[in-house]
Amino acid sequence: MPSELRLKRRVQFYETDAAGIVHFSWYFRYMEEAEHALWRASGMSISQPEAGIGWPRIAASCEFHRPLRFEDEFEIWIRVAAITEKTIRYECVMSKGDVKIATGSVTAVCVSKRQEPMKSTPIPPEIAARFQAPAGADAERK
Amino acid sequence: MPSELRLKRRVQFYETDAAGIVHFSWYFRYMEEAEHALWRASGMSISQPEAGIGWPRIAASCEFHRPLRFEDEFEIWIRVAAITEKTIRYECVMSKGDVKIATGSVTAVCVSKRQEPMKSTPIPPEIAARFQAPAGADAERK
Amino acid sequence: MPSELRLKRRVQFYETDAAGIVHFSWYFRYMEEAEHALWRASGMSISQPEAGIGWPRIAASCEFHRPLRFEDEFEIWIRVAAITEKTIRYECVMSKGDVKIATGSVTAVCVSKRQEPMKSTPIPPEIAARFQAPAGADAERK
Amino acid sequence: MPSELRLKRRVQFYETDAAGIVHFSWYFRYMEEAEHALWRASGMSISQPEAGIGWPRIAASCEFHRPLRFEDEFEIWIRVAAITEKTIRYECVMSKGDVKIATGSVTAVCVSKRQEPMKSTPIPPEIAARFQAPAGADAERK
Repeated sequence: MPSELRLKRRVQFYETDAAGIVHFSWYFRYMEEAEHALWRASGMSISQPEAGIGWPRIAASCEFHRPLRFEDEFEIWIRVAAITEKTIRYECVMSKGDVKIATGSVTAVCVSKRQEPMKSTPIPPEIAARFQAPAGADAERK
Repeated sequence: MPSELRLKRRVQFYETDAAGIVHFSWYFRYMEEAEHALWRASGMSISQPEAGIGWPRIAASCEFHRPLRFEDEFEIWIRVAAITEKTIRYECVMSKGDVKIATGSVTAVCVSKRQEPMKSTPIPPEIAARFQAPAGADAERK
Repeated sequence: MPSELRLKRRVQFYETDAAGIVHFSWYFRYMEEAEHALWRASGMSISQPEAGIGWPRIAASCEFHRPLRFEDEFEIWIRVAAITEKTIRYECVMSKGDVKIATGSVTAVCVSKRQEPMKSTPIPPEIAARFQAPAGADAERK
Repeated sequence: MPSELRLKRRVQFYETDAAGIVHFSWYFRYMEEAEHALWRASGMSISQPEAGIGWPRIAASCEFHRPLRFEDEFEIWIRVAAITEKTIRYECVMSKGDVKIATGSVTAVCVSKRQEPMKSTPIPPEIAARFQAPAGADAERK
């Protein structure tokens, strides 16, 4: 039972640039919006200050296939692609109707914020239990 | 001896929008850049976590006279316009060569971050001493 | 019959800053989101390239009463406060439940994009007809 | 003679997020700033509306090694890593003093803006002549 979510979104004017299309930096924010919505849909907030942990990104990538323009309605599909002891990797496909707009990936690492500098730490089991990577990716789980 | 600063800046591509000009929300960020540069020029950082204070904005306004475009070089002139017991009001003029682009104002309030919710608190005298409002504005100082 | 709209919104993580609250520049983007939603609710898009007009801002202001934090749900209430021959002024109140968060105002001017530099031009009557300023503000209509 | 550039930069407050560090979406904007500075250092602007071409991104990626915080001074080193008939790939290393902060890559494609939708087109030879990919990458040039 993989963890996934579809999020509908409309392009805001401030997300466009002088080329008349959405600036590429915004796709990374779209992916983050979907990630946080996935946590909420899983009954959690990614912000858990009382737990003393955080989720900085260690890698992010995106391929851009077609542009988005002001007021375009599009969808972000996100899924948990892999969970390791300390990291979660998400994969995203952004699309407008039947047209694939972009595909991306973000890897976040669980860190303890109780020390300075912050240090990676195992994902609490009650969080890992809420997210399921797809079967084919199970081997990646250490 | 009023506190003031001139900051040179170039428009970045991600600051433009689909109308081909700088999005109006950026002028408020330009003013903040100048504000923080003014603090540094006064020998301080506006971020003083050890002092337990912060400077949220309570008011901001801007009038836009002419647009800025990608790669335009412009100047932000900022000055401390008024200091009260707990607030600092900055005034800014943004210009490109001889052309006035925008004029704005931002008021920040000193708050104690040692309590929740944060609460306004008198500006520490060692900070107020570094900033001088212009003579005509002295009456505003309580 | 004044033109107004209520827009529900959730704070995204990338809208927060190191003070742990929404950066003040975002409130101007929230107001713009509501403005464009109001146009859509009135059966139009503010982007009408075929009409050769645009709506740059000539003034914007905001007062900040309470902070917003990550994942806060809030509402933006926008109304057309005044229409003149060439400008529309919007007023906004942002609130979280019963708590007033911020109040702001934005004035946009209708410009012709068929010339360079762009020049203010009368609001097309078919657009003005869709927006009604409240009765008390009628005197402002020239 | 590879094309490269080093750009010094200071973290602005609005680039930070509630985790107290620079939001990961900003690294992609830092890379773009360096890219456009590289074009200027090569005697050009990447914005050449009269040439009818543009440079949308087709891929972008970044690995994040250490966080950046408000007012940190850092450096973006960018170089042209590969040029093909229609694309330029840039590689970046962001560092603070001796500490490597992030490494990233962006690939832009030359498109003709004279048609809708925009379509990829060979890089004009006078532009390609200004950028030199490093010797080891020459084989990638078709």
